[in-house]
Amino acid sequence: MGIHEECGVFGLYSESRRELAHQVYYGLYSLQHRGQESAGIAVCDDGVINYHKDKGLVSEVFTSEVLSSLPEGNIAVGHVRYSTTGGNRVRNAQPIVVNHQKGRMAIAHNGNLSNAAALRTDLELSGAIFHTTSDTEIIAYIITRKRLRLPSIEDAVSAAMEEIEGAYSLVIMSPSKLIAARDPYGFRPLCFGILPDGEYAVASESCAITAIGGKFIRDLEPGEMLVFSKEGVTSRKEHCGKRPARMCVFEYIYFARPDSVIDGVSVHSARLRAGEILADACPADADVVIGVPDSGLDAALGFSRRSGIPYGIGLIKNRYIGRTFIAPTGRDNKVMIKLSVLRETVEGKRIVLVDDSIVRGTTSRRIVSLLRDAGAKEIHFRVSAPPFLHPCYYGTDIDSEENLVACRHTTEETAELIGADSLGYLPVTELERLAGRKGLCTACFTGEYPTPVPVTQLKDRFEIKISHGSASAAE
Amino acid sequence: MGIHEECGVFGLYSESRRELAHQVYYGLYSLQHRGQESAGIAVCDDGVINYHKDKGLVSEVFTSEVLSSLPEGNIAVGHVRYSTTGGNRVRNAQPIVVNHQKGRMAIAHNGNLSNAAALRTDLELSGAIFHTTSDTEIIAYIITRKRLRLPSIEDAVSAAMEEIEGAYSLVIMSPSKLIAARDPYGFRPLCFGILPDGEYAVASESCAITAIGGKFIRDLEPGEMLVFSKEGVTSRKEHCGKRPARMCVFEYIYFARPDSVIDGVSVHSARLRAGEILADACPADADVVIGVPDSGLDAALGFSRRSGIPYGIGLIKNRYIGRTFIAPTGRDNKVMIKLSVLRETVEGKRIVLVDDSIVRGTTSRRIVSLLRDAGAKEIHFRVSAPPFLHPCYYGTDIDSEENLVACRHTTEETAELIGADSLGYLPVTELERLAGRKGLCTACFTGEYPTPVPVTQLKDRFEIKISHGSASAAE
Amino acid sequence: MGIHEECGVFGLYSESRRELAHQVYYGLYSLQHRGQESAGIAVCDDGVINYHKDKGLVSEVFTSEVLSSLPEGNIAVGHVRYSTTGGNRVRNAQPIVVNHQKGRMAIAHNGNLSNAAALRTDLELSGAIFHTTSDTEIIAYIITRKRLRLPSIEDAVSAAMEEIEGAYSLVIMSPSKLIAARDPYGFRPLCFGILPDGEYAVASESCAITAIGGKFIRDLEPGEMLVFSKEGVTSRKEHCGKRPARMCVFEYIYFARPDSVIDGVSVHSARLRAGEILADACPADADVVIGVPDSGLDAALGFSRRSGIPYGIGLIKNRYIGRTFIAPTGRDNKVMIKLSVLRETVEGKRIVLVDDSIVRGTTSRRIVSLLRDAGAKEIHFRVSAPPFLHPCYYGTDIDSEENLVACRHTTEETAELIGADSLGYLPVTELERLAGRKGLCTACFTGEYPTPVPVTQLKDRFEIKISHGSASAAE
Amino acid sequence: MGIHEECGVFGLYSESRRELAHQVYYGLYSLQHRGQESAGIAVCDDGVINYHKDKGLVSEVFTSEVLSSLPEGNIAVGHVRYSTTGGNRVRNAQPIVVNHQKGRMAIAHNGNLSNAAALRTDLELSGAIFHTTSDTEIIAYIITRKRLRLPSIEDAVSAAMEEIEGAYSLVIMSPSKLIAARDPYGFRPLCFGILPDGEYAVASESCAITAIGGKFIRDLEPGEMLVFSKEGVTSRKEHCGKRPARMCVFEYIYFARPDSVIDGVSVHSARLRAGEILADACPADADVVIGVPDSGLDAALGFSRRSGIPYGIGLIKNRYIGRTFIAPTGRDNKVMIKLSVLRETVEGKRIVLVDDSIVRGTTSRRIVSLLRDAGAKEIHFRVSAPPFLHPCYYGTDIDSEENLVACRHTTEETAELIGADSLGYLPVTELERLAGRKGLCTACFTGEYPTPVPVTQLKDRFEIKISHGSASAAE
Repeated sequence: MGIHEECGVFGLYSESRRELAHQVYYGLYSLQHRGQESAGIAVCDDGVINYHKDKGLVSEVFTSEVLSSLPEGNIAVGHVRYSTTGGNRVRNAQPIVVNHQKGRMAIAHNGNLSNAAALRTDLELSGAIFHTTSDTEIIAYIITRKRLRLPSIEDAVSAAMEEIEGAYSLVIMSPSKLIAARDPYGFRPLCFGILPDGEYAVASESCAITAIGGKFIRDLEPGEMLVFSKEGVTSRKEHCGKRPARMCVFEYIYFARPDSVIDGVSVHSARLRAGEILADACPADADVVIGVPDSGLDAALGFSRRSGIPYGIGLIKNRYIGRTFIAPTGRDNKVMIKLSVLRETVEGKRIVLVDDSIVRGTTSRRIVSLLRDAGAKEIHFRVSAPPFLHPCYYGTDIDSEENLVACRHTTEETAELIGADSLGYLPVTELERLAGRKGLCTACFTGEYPTPVPVTQLKDRFEIKISHGSASAAE
Repeated sequence: MGIHEECGVFGLYSESRRELAHQVYYGLYSLQHRGQESAGIAVCDDGVINYHKDKGLVSEVFTSEVLSSLPEGNIAVGHVRYSTTGGNRVRNAQPIVVNHQKGRMAIAHNGNLSNAAALRTDLELSGAIFHTTSDTEIIAYIITRKRLRLPSIEDAVSAAMEEIEGAYSLVIMSPSKLIAARDPYGFRPLCFGILPDGEYAVASESCAITAIGGKFIRDLEPGEMLVFSKEGVTSRKEHCGKRPARMCVFEYIYFARPDSVIDGVSVHSARLRAGEILADACPADADVVIGVPDSGLDAALGFSRRSGIPYGIGLIKNRYIGRTFIAPTGRDNKVMIKLSVLRETVEGKRIVLVDDSIVRGTTSRRIVSLLRDAGAKEIHFRVSAPPFLHPCYYGTDIDSEENLVACRHTTEETAELIGADSLGYLPVTELERLAGRKGLCTACFTGEYPTPVPVTQLKDRFEIKISHGSASAAE
Repeated sequence: MGIHEECGVFGLYSESRRELAHQVYYGLYSLQHRGQESAGIAVCDDGVINYHKDKGLVSEVFTSEVLSSLPEGNIAVGHVRYSTTGGNRVRNAQPIVVNHQKGRMAIAHNGNLSNAAALRTDLELSGAIFHTTSDTEIIAYIITRKRLRLPSIEDAVSAAMEEIEGAYSLVIMSPSKLIAARDPYGFRPLCFGILPDGEYAVASESCAITAIGGKFIRDLEPGEMLVFSKEGVTSRKEHCGKRPARMCVFEYIYFARPDSVIDGVSVHSARLRAGEILADACPADADVVIGVPDSGLDAALGFSRRSGIPYGIGLIKNRYIGRTFIAPTGRDNKVMIKLSVLRETVEGKRIVLVDDSIVRGTTSRRIVSLLRDAGAKEIHFRVSAPPFLHPCYYGTDIDSEENLVACRHTTEETAELIGADSLGYLPVTELERLAGRKGLCTACFTGEYPTPVPVTQLKDRFEIKISHGSASAAE
Repeated sequence: MGIHEECGVFGLYSESRRELAHQVYYGLYSLQHRGQESAGIAVCDDGVINYHKDKGLVSEVFTSEVLSSLPEGNIAVGHVRYSTTGGNRVRNAQPIVVNHQKGRMAIAHNGNLSNAAALRTDLELSGAIFHTTSDTEIIAYIITRKRLRLPSIEDAVSAAMEEIEGAYSLVIMSPSKLIAARDPYGFRPLCFGILPDGEYAVASESCAITAIGGKFIRDLEPGEMLVFSKEGVTSRKEHCGKRPARMCVFEYIYFARPDSVIDGVSVHSARLRAGEILADACPADADVVIGVPDSGLDAALGFSRRSGIPYGIGLIKNRYIGRTFIAPTGRDNKVMIKLSVLRETVEGKRIVLVDDSIVRGTTSRRIVSLLRDAGAKEIHFRVSAPPFLHPCYYGTDIDSEENLVACRHTTEETAELIGADSLGYLPVTELERLAGRKGLCTACFTGEYPTPVPVTQLKDRFEIKISHGSASAAE
């Protein structure tokens, strides 16, 4: 896959001082699929915020020694990040911890603002300086400025929500409170639950709460803010209903972990349904259905069940690819090294091959070629999503239109391009059936953007210039 | 799983000087499942052997910088290792490179000698000193001593094969030759093939040859030695047939990668057959069959196909567990963090759960408990291997008898212990059907050891003493 | 010594694009004595600023790989830092690089503002957020805000100099200019010169310019600002003469490198004079004069020359103490390991021992004891500075009054405390003779502070709280 | 200086089990000048030997964590190494720890065997394999083989001393004994003493014993062996007097630390005498005497005292050069960066410049040039050693004859070459006066080798071949 979610957020609130860093570690570990480039944890201990963040996987950034160096506390936030722009800079790692007039604050953010450039210009014109190129620093500034004139951090966050536009699932830690907020469209998931020892947990996905033994309570509503403090949990809904719900449908198709439940819908079930819909919409006469691991497996099973064509295991993935893997250069080696074919499954067979998306088509072509080399007789490629036709401004890095194969080619042309005997996409009209709900953002498939589309993006302003300067500027 | 293969070996022979280190890197990367503790590559360039080895995964040990520092050459050997004893010491990493009277030699070894202790004592009594505690240094010594009186390295290896007893798949590099040798029982796999540019490749498993674009030629016969040199490939079979073939059946069940073909048998097919055999031998009345990822999935699919009970995806594995992961302490957290249940698949269902083995029973109990918590109504545990009853002396670390649950409990007791509604093992009588062949070593299930069982083992002599001295003695 | 300078700054301006990072590296390396805790280099390449900074010595932070990753450019700044507070945090490393309304800016700063707390509060009240606890971020903010209403960066720096009070030697890089500014008191040194290839160099000390083959031109006057740009070098003196010159006399006594010349005075000569003054003011009847290496050696030689008592080498210092050295715990080991006595020099002798300062007295006592153990008959301790009686607010970490031995004890008591037969300090009245100039800050000896003394300091506000929270919070 | 000592050794014997690793750490730290490339410590705890060794300075190799991981014990040995050949390989680091028929043994060695090549060939012909290219492994083998037929380790060491020829100061640890042995020529120093808590300490130089608070007892005699065991200390002298004493005179001139006393002679005193002898033998009409830091300072002071010309501090050395320093490329930068001139001392002056040796002449020329640039009027170069004319086979890396400037040029030519107004060496006839003793090895000056000169050296056999293969082959 060439598409990445940008972030996962996690937060804990405990009534008493205790060891929280390990819990955050496991929470982030369960959200690792949402971002593998950097990780960070901040712990608030009696008003003092300590933190550590760095490039790498959760398990690389947090050695035993580092984790132990974080103190006990009663509030904590964590973040995993995939960096879409300008290399991978530790200075853009989160949580961002800032000092302002009322004390310290830590912010972890998933999503992209659609009015970031305008907000940043306004801030700069009033004397703000920026250490990073991320939206999160903009949010920190706006909250800080609101806070100067408002009696509480939650009032400041609510006031900030008036100004910021786009996708944001926020977890914010003040010296005494944990605040979770989801944008009024609800682009990105955000939920909360309770751990066995009574701590409240906030997470991008429910899997992070259940994985550490917690009980999922519910998703935040779009526009809702939750405040965890000595007074308990307070829900503030002044921004709810101001915008139509627009949950990213691609969370169900690809981003989220299959054991998560988002806004009441099981991700695994949605993917099984995607396979069933595909079997109805784009049937194929075949001997076996195989999925591209890992995210194509559920839909492949759904396709098999609906069509009655046997499910097979035809491709396996090498699990030892880490960040330090040296990718082969030259032709098709990369896919060969990461994916292997089970010849017994495909040789002499007519195959239905299910994957979750086609971006540029190069990966798909390589997989088809692998299967042909192993003796597949026919290959019917089925995609559990509609074709990508438009960029995303809400926190994922869907490629630019000139690179999206579906922008330049018909389905038939694409099939030929990737070498498949037939190609079928999930019909865009079936996305609500797939998700079992309404209120979805389908902009990358339909071009119907819920917000005004930004004319310039921050990454254009900062990152592109940098890229012709130098590849690396690590802190 | 608590059982590990000890090693994977890889070798390349090219007629001309070229960049070989990257090819070995990808070969070892495809053998990474056979050993994750250390990795090493040695390259022979015009008679001079350069090498690098260290603790860690292939992708960790070999950074771009390190890999580039290895020169071009015409012969190369590589090794991945799982260390069963005495911590994880870089000094036991392989290949072992030694200087002897005729020049340098590099050896990579998979297996365990059954007469190592006696051989070592003999060598010591004649003045040998040992830097490591591994069998491989013993083999190096014996070859060296034979070489003093014999005209060629291959004669020396052949003479050494008279003396060493047990499991060994060897890849040996002299200044001008690459030698591959498989013990007369053929305990461990070893095969060879040819790469697109004409290099010969030797590997523990065929997947390492095909993954880098090579063509698998054939397995070495038990007792066969192959010599790759300027004179081409020579097969020497003076040790063939001296012993009955005794290929480790657990390679088919668990160790090997499913896309490998060993002695003509596809590993994936063998595992599918295991599921089919189980469905016949230990049927269950259930709603869904699920496998424990990754190695239980093939057998689960076989069970489903044979029984007609639908195949489901019920457990998913977190892929981001690396060597640096901080395992949770306390109760059942470790499994919860690594494995997650897809509640939609199991809730309210009668489950057939297929795994490849039960060792102590603790992991199995935790998985059963996870499924119960997710609402499974009945759990019928099926194991695609017979019960473990005996230790292995041929290169795996099957636990001692006092820890093997099957040594102390009947199947019924074990079922109750792990919380399953029923438990069924693959009948030991069906192992040849599973593997589709004869000539298997089934000693861990049957106690029928092909060789005399060693009274003392080297690891008893060295490692146990060390363990009460100090945990770490890294070089 | 228990006293540290806080920082060294360095900057380069070239008319054309070229490799500057290595030159900065060597410049910083020559300023390493001014700060060993962190180092950083920023390079401006056609308006784009790339940088790297981290904890450690210059040679540790900048490996070949890191140094090569910095692009060519035409402006560069560098910084070495000693962190006086709150552990050693990479996030306080410099240069600080910020984005503001007019582009990016990098700032490197040596010194401490005396009105930092007030300025920070003002900024926070107008909505500023701070990522660090350093004065430098305050300066960056003020320049940024001035810049919004002023036509050039140099006008903004000049306007900022109206507001900031205390010690600052600044090197600032905008996308097209290099600016150097020294505070109107001239507390800290700052000078400039020209390199063999025509680049202008700005440095805390002249040694950094001459060490890389450059030609020292002159010191900046107190209050002066230099602007290096396409238009050449412009000197702006609107702040000159607004305050009396108050150059830190301890730069001459201890901080600066002996081969530097500051405001026209050779540091080595000043130290020789210190020894001569001591010989006059506190003579001793002795056989040999020895210095505590390294900074006591010059004054010891001066004492010897003036008194006619032979100069000897009596103490040697182990040069292999690095940052990672594990200091001995327990009694007097630390000094024993770092310093060794040459018994031949001291045995049976009456010694004049010259050191540059006594802070708490513990180190001095240990050195005296070492000499006694080696057979010294008499020890006459001479200090090439007056007694420390007051803290410093201008960029050094002279201990608090309760720890300064001279605040609690007479000279005679101190002599007894450290075990010396006699003790003599450089008379405070001779400081101008030592420095060969007027216009000195002698506040740590006299309590005559040139600026209002801050009531609270930033480090009280941030660091002390943190210290009881957790020792480490690395970014 | 371009000349390096190869090693320093250290050992401890305690009657009871205690924490020894830290003591060895400080001992090695005090011997760091004898080798900066690798370091190692082995501890014997009730017969079990644990060790750690790696590339780097003592303080880099032994972090707190690593040091703590070594167990308590009652015997320990340590080693620092400078690698003269073939890059810097961790596999050649010491102590070497081997398993042999009677248990484990750790060996640390300073020196070079002159019959290593012959011994190695013999061993190889009897079936030995070698993991390293160092002499030490040869010694280990010979001791091991002797041990097979002899009742004790000390008998085996004594028998080995019959066979090995050349320079060796050995510290050997068996499961129950510490053995120290010095070759019959006494090429390299070796002494012992007692620590405050009663442990016996063996060290290459007395400074390592006194630095950790111990009391120096005496040097080992040439040929002497000391055995530390439960039975106390035993001296065995069967090899004493078999060869004439031939202590390396360059230990006094350059290698050893000035606070060491070797065979009754203070190193500092010897160097002062070298300066006095020079002042008599090669007087100069000058204004000031300066030394090249650090090792030229003592002789400079001696010259000043004898001649009456004032001593000055004219050159200072940057102390922050670590292993990771990136040396400047191109002309004269390296010296400029490491050494700085104090212009006040040399400007307009006639200088006597004292250094300990001239090897190729390049460094000397650069220093002279630095002084000229700073305004020195005349430079009279004095060397506190005779000219190097011959290679060393006993453990130092004096350059080959074609590179030694004195082999190709007269003193007058050399003076001109390095740009000095005059040049004077210490007369070779005065070496015994310098050392205050007889029985010196002066082979590098005189060509009078105490042993037969080896025809081929091991490093020719192994290292040169490797150097054209690849620069790096790290373990």
